[in-house]
Amino acid sequence: MAIANKQIIYTHPPSPAINPDLSSNNGTFSLRQSSISLPIPTDKLLVRNHYLSLDPAMRQWLTAKRSYIAPVELGDVMRSLAIAQIVDVGESLTSQFKKGEWLIAVTGWQEYALLGAKEAAKQRAVVPPGCSPMDAMAVLGTTGLTAYFGLLEVGQMRAGDTVVVSGAAGATGMIVGQIARIKGAKRVVGIAGSPDKCRFLTEELGFDVAINYKDKDWKKQLRAACPEYIDVYFDNVGGEILDVCLGLAAKDARFPISGHISQYSAAKPEGPRNIMMLIGQRVMMKGFIYLDYHKKFPSAIADLQKWLIEGKIKRKEYIIKGGLEACPQGLVDMYAGANTGKTMVEVVPFSKAIQETPAKL
Amino acid sequence: MAIANKQIIYTHPPSPAINPDLSSNNGTFSLRQSSISLPIPTDKLLVRNHYLSLDPAMRQWLTAKRSYIAPVELGDVMRSLAIAQIVDVGESLTSQFKKGEWLIAVTGWQEYALLGAKEAAKQRAVVPPGCSPMDAMAVLGTTGLTAYFGLLEVGQMRAGDTVVVSGAAGATGMIVGQIARIKGAKRVVGIAGSPDKCRFLTEELGFDVAINYKDKDWKKQLRAACPEYIDVYFDNVGGEILDVCLGLAAKDARFPISGHISQYSAAKPEGPRNIMMLIGQRVMMKGFIYLDYHKKFPSAIADLQKWLIEGKIKRKEYIIKGGLEACPQGLVDMYAGANTGKTMVEVVPFSKAIQETPAKL
Repeated sequence: MAIANKQIIYTHPPSPAINPDLSSNNGTFSLRQSSISLPIPTDKLLVRNHYLSLDPAMRQWLTAKRSYIAPVELGDVMRSLAIAQIVDVGESLTSQFKKGEWLIAVTGWQEYALLGAKEAAKQRAVVPPGCSPMDAMAVLGTTGLTAYFGLLEVGQMRAGDTVVVSGAAGATGMIVGQIARIKGAKRVVGIAGSPDKCRFLTEELGFDVAINYKDKDWKKQLRAACPEYIDVYFDNVGGEILDVCLGLAAKDARFPISGHISQYSAAKPEGPRNIMMLIGQRVMMKGFIYLDYHKKFPSAIADLQKWLIEGKIKRKEYIIKGGLEACPQGLVDMYAGANTGKTMVEVVPFSKAIQETPAKL
Repeated sequence: MAIANKQIIYTHPPSPAINPDLSSNNGTFSLRQSSISLPIPTDKLLVRNHYLSLDPAMRQWLTAKRSYIAPVELGDVMRSLAIAQIVDVGESLTSQFKKGEWLIAVTGWQEYALLGAKEAAKQRAVVPPGCSPMDAMAVLGTTGLTAYFGLLEVGQMRAGDTVVVSGAAGATGMIVGQIARIKGAKRVVGIAGSPDKCRFLTEELGFDVAINYKDKDWKKQLRAACPEYIDVYFDNVGGEILDVCLGLAAKDARFPISGHISQYSAAKPEGPRNIMMLIGQRVMMKGFIYLDYHKKFPSAIADLQKWLIEGKIKRKEYIIKGGLEACPQGLVDMYAGANTGKTMVEVVPFSKAIQETPAKL
């Protein structure tokens, strides 16, 4: 006995851009028909992936050397966070887990996965009243925590600051701006890539100004939006935007560096030419990963949860239909800026879950 | 009655390199024969410059926008720190100052200067036993304090760290390495521009390794010298060396940014392409000026003084003869790496002081 398990395998290193074509001989990924034997091992859980998270860091997971995480090996299932449901429990674990429980787990681009108990115990989805498993993966998960710690711990944001965030309509950026608003920023300025995204930021999320970096005069607009320069620049993109923001840094500015989405697939990455501004204005730049702050997760999640329930933080998901096979193209599209909000691929809708989602509990 | 006062005036913005020729029509500087009327104003001090400090920051003082200090205006005397002696005291100040006192003052590239009392009171040279006014300007002054605060406050150097410093044979760099040694660094690695400088660093100052960045394989040498990567990189030069050090950053590395001497005269400054390492290794980069830490000057100077007297910090001066007129060429030569240690231009030797130097007291 076995169940079929479709998987997406990392096959060829991108050169440097991802080739999302699953049927190409040079595709970055390929499809594999695999299976999981039944009964499952007594010390394992079988989970079914419903929604797979697409994250800007994924490009880095493929090729970055000396990064915060080991690269995905060629021939392995592509790494990914997922909203997954426990559909079978190994005999020795029945007292700890039950069928139907939801996890936010690193299961990879596949339909099913086997997880150990230790792993799974850390990955139980926390879904507060009025919230969904989507929230557990986004606002209350990686993206919300990245925004929270980047802005408040690394960026040391203070009331009265001028806060600028790039990739502002992305999963993390949109939360950064909203937390800055909550924490009393004098000005919250978002940089995004379309008029629609900019409208979303100002009209729905309360950003003071949103600037489309595809406008010819976007630098002028940014200068005008920051008459007292920039106290905190939360960087999701790197490249030219980071460079321009460095040129506009206020004295003692803090630049939390969360991502370099503009550079991941660049053949020759661009360094910021305005680096000399570091001395002139005593700028502090620091890269970080939200996991660095794991000791402070409980209070951060409590804050985020409160703001989410109070409506002070608005959520937004960008859900790609088309099943597992939609992942590679979805990733490429995300790098091209298709999404507003948190990008996920729907593998199986909640309606097909083996029991109700915690959202309805 | 008046005394003649030769001055060097900032005449043409460098484009982008300094043209040191005082007789050229396009020279960055020109010579002016000026004079100071006698008797001097009752609320002023007349000081005579003996040694003028040449500092890497000077290129920035000419053209940098939004820097930590206002640029020198065209037509003004070039700004410079100096070891100067009070040679005349205005009538109202005779109870506060006396002829023969030494100051470390920003008097500029000229033979004499008039200073106000408030200014001068802050600039009295502190010359401990066994030390000279040279020390007051270097190890116990701007360069020593820059090394001290950059390494210990910005860089948060801890015992066991691998510390790398560029411009290591320069006035600041040579002190950085010695303080790192004193504070228990596991490895102290200097990057400099000649075999002689490298020998000086390892044989006289106790650096573990010194690397000549003009060697073809300097990057390999640096990698080999830092088997556990770099915990603190004290940057005096920017450009490619900063970039390579970023590529070798250890987890949680600190990069105090003190200078960008390789970039000041670049037509198009280079940004560090390895900027993505900031996230992978959570590197913190911060620009600073020693003056930011003025509240901690007394304890820092006490430490430096102690180490200097105990012989744990060795001093080194690079003194350019030739009088005031030698300043522009001396500055250009310093950018080309002529100096080992603190660069000064001798305008008038101590032997011609109106009374003994404090060094002999």
